[in-house]
Amino acid sequence: MAELPDVLSRTAALIEAPSITPATGTVFDCLEAMLAPLGFAVHRFLAGEPPEGPVENLFAIRQGLAGSRHFAFAGHLDVVPPGEGWSSAPFTADLREVPGGRMLYGRGAVDMKGAIAAMVCAVEQIPEEAGTISFIITGDEEGPAKYGTVPLIAHMREVGAIPDFCLVGEPTSVHRLGDMVKIGRRGSVNMWLTAKGAQGHVAYPHLADNPIPRLVALLAELDALVLDEGSEWFQPSNLEVTDLEVGNRATNVIPAEARARLSVRYNDHHTGQALVDRVTEIAARHRTEVRATLHGEAFITLPGAQSALVAAAVEAETGLSPELSTTGGTSDARFLRALCPVIEFGLTNATMHKTDEAVAVEDLEVLTRIYRRIAEAALA
Amino acid sequence: MAELPDVLSRTAALIEAPSITPATGTVFDCLEAMLAPLGFAVHRFLAGEPPEGPVENLFAIRQGLAGSRHFAFAGHLDVVPPGEGWSSAPFTADLREVPGGRMLYGRGAVDMKGAIAAMVCAVEQIPEEAGTISFIITGDEEGPAKYGTVPLIAHMREVGAIPDFCLVGEPTSVHRLGDMVKIGRRGSVNMWLTAKGAQGHVAYPHLADNPIPRLVALLAELDALVLDEGSEWFQPSNLEVTDLEVGNRATNVIPAEARARLSVRYNDHHTGQALVDRVTEIAARHRTEVRATLHGEAFITLPGAQSALVAAAVEAETGLSPELSTTGGTSDARFLRALCPVIEFGLTNATMHKTDEAVAVEDLEVLTRIYRRIAEAALA
Ligand SMILES: [Zn+2]
Ligand SMILES: [Zn+2]
Repeated sequence: MAELPDVLSRTAALIEAPSITPATGTVFDCLEAMLAPLGFAVHRFLAGEPPEGPVENLFAIRQGLAGSRHFAFAGHLDVVPPGEGWSSAPFTADLREVPGGRMLYGRGAVDMKGAIAAMVCAVEQIPEEAGTISFIITGDEEGPAKYGTVPLIAHMREVGAIPDFCLVGEPTSVHRLGDMVKIGRRGSVNMWLTAKGAQGHVAYPHLADNPIPRLVALLAELDALVLDEGSEWFQPSNLEVTDLEVGNRATNVIPAEARARLSVRYNDHHTGQALVDRVTEIAARHRTEVRATLHGEAFITLPGAQSALVAAAVEAETGLSPELSTTGGTSDARFLRALCPVIEFGLTNATMHKTDEAVAVEDLEVLTRIYRRIAEAALA
Repeated sequence: MAELPDVLSRTAALIEAPSITPATGTVFDCLEAMLAPLGFAVHRFLAGEPPEGPVENLFAIRQGLAGSRHFAFAGHLDVVPPGEGWSSAPFTADLREVPGGRMLYGRGAVDMKGAIAAMVCAVEQIPEEAGTISFIITGDEEGPAKYGTVPLIAHMREVGAIPDFCLVGEPTSVHRLGDMVKIGRRGSVNMWLTAKGAQGHVAYPHLADNPIPRLVALLAELDALVLDEGSEWFQPSNLEVTDLEVGNRATNVIPAEARARLSVRYNDHHTGQALVDRVTEIAARHRTEVRATLHGEAFITLPGAQSALVAAAVEAETGLSPELSTTGGTSDARFLRALCPVIEFGLTNATMHKTDEAVAVEDLEVLTRIYRRIAEAALA
């Protein structure tokens, strides 16, 4: 086994294939070169047009014995832009000795090239006869996600490859590897509010119709809404006003239009459409129009066999009993849950999307062992 | 008198000297050439630096007999930019026959080169021994007005030329020449509100501090304020929110800062500073900072001898009994009122600051006669 690449070298190889969303090409060549020798049939395809695409997607499957269970690892090879201020080149895997061990720096280290390397290393140790294993890997999870996991799922349905259980390798751990597992996610909907009026001079307000007071009254009413008090597995739903815009440079002019943007993260008490309808009804009273984009409904894989097997694997390797959480942003689990039960577990997220993103080498090794346990238990 | 230029040709000459704010040079040469032959001592000076300056200012005085009264005409030679869509060149004086008479088109026709031409023509008919007459003419009334009437007043104080009464020739008439005289103006103050918070991800609002709800609550509170119910000579004070700005393009980010702008037009129940203090106190409860620019306090020349003589002159020439008003925007009368009682009267304002600004030739002639009556009555 000595000559085989370890999880560290595989993570490094993936980091050094730059892959800002939408990702294509080299980084997928790199992953294919890891999976093919392990007996995987690799299917890659491009989807979408500029600027959102083309996006590369990869579905790899290693069939077990007939009738065996099917376990899937899912994730993404695209990364967010590195930004400024790194202490080493973001697309160079930089290994540093630090107090307490070694850290590997580079964009994607925790979100989520390290996890994909750990999945590969885990599978390397599982015999083919254990069951069917697949990889569902997209090049656009960080972007609009329109041409990523969605067409991957369509492909899987087409070829009849429906997993019994799917583990998404997003960085769910918070303070220590293993402290948190995600069993669901809140829904997410953005809304754009536009109040229209009539322009005029501030000295003659009766000849104008200022839309700002109506927008302000609407936003005050929305800010005062209590959407719910939370539910069994979810925190309370939350509405944030994230932008205001008028763009009136003339101090003596009443503007003709005022705009605001909302982001609602909501639990299983709501659907996106019901929230849009509710906001639209309130907005209408303030003569304000609403346009909405729904990013995903709230969903949950209720605690049970799947969460238990993930928690057991985590506990066996870390001694931690992970919190089963539905907090945080959205992920591609919102699409995959249509296929089968989905749970998310991965590295610590402290440096994700940040300057000097880094992973502890020891975490990569522990995660590999956890992923092996999860796959083996899921196939058992 | 046949060879003397009439009010039409003088208005045309001034229009054809382009003078967008800040104005200097030719248009002042033109006015000086009109005033010098009438016995005026003309003092011109530049004030201010780019971009607000240089501004040209003109103070012209024709001394009457020792101890005679001093009457001043005040106004501005600068004009607002013409904008697009004129039916004739904006800086060409275009005389057209229209149903009901002749109209002269050009930027500044009513605001207020026509009025200045009428002042000159009026004075031409008044003998020197009638009393002291002066012209207080700036090249920046339409702009920041920092280097215009303010240094003119300083110059007048310096040379000891303090009028007993001043008539500002702004276009105060609304539907017909003579229907409205301004005896005061509301005060004007702009305020910039800035609410600061802490940026964060919408999925983790507890880790951020969204400044928008605080700004919205503040604006709702300000919108609900009733500043007053008006006063004897003033309409109710009015607060308008004229701009909102966050500038956050990321739908999943809670912004760090939110801004709004207010314009308050207020009557003699208030001072600008008291209003700023009041808004600042309310804003502080919403952790929002206030920056203010005061443009002029409310003022009034209470109905009495001056308004009576202006109204009488208007009525004698037009048959109209003018409304004594304090409505509308600010004007340089806000500065001049520190010198002496000030009343404003001039042409109709329907086309001021608009495309195809135009004045009825007959109005120029009637205004000349009204101005002559006002000057003579003020000096009597
Ligand atoms: Zn990710
Ligand atoms: Zn004017």
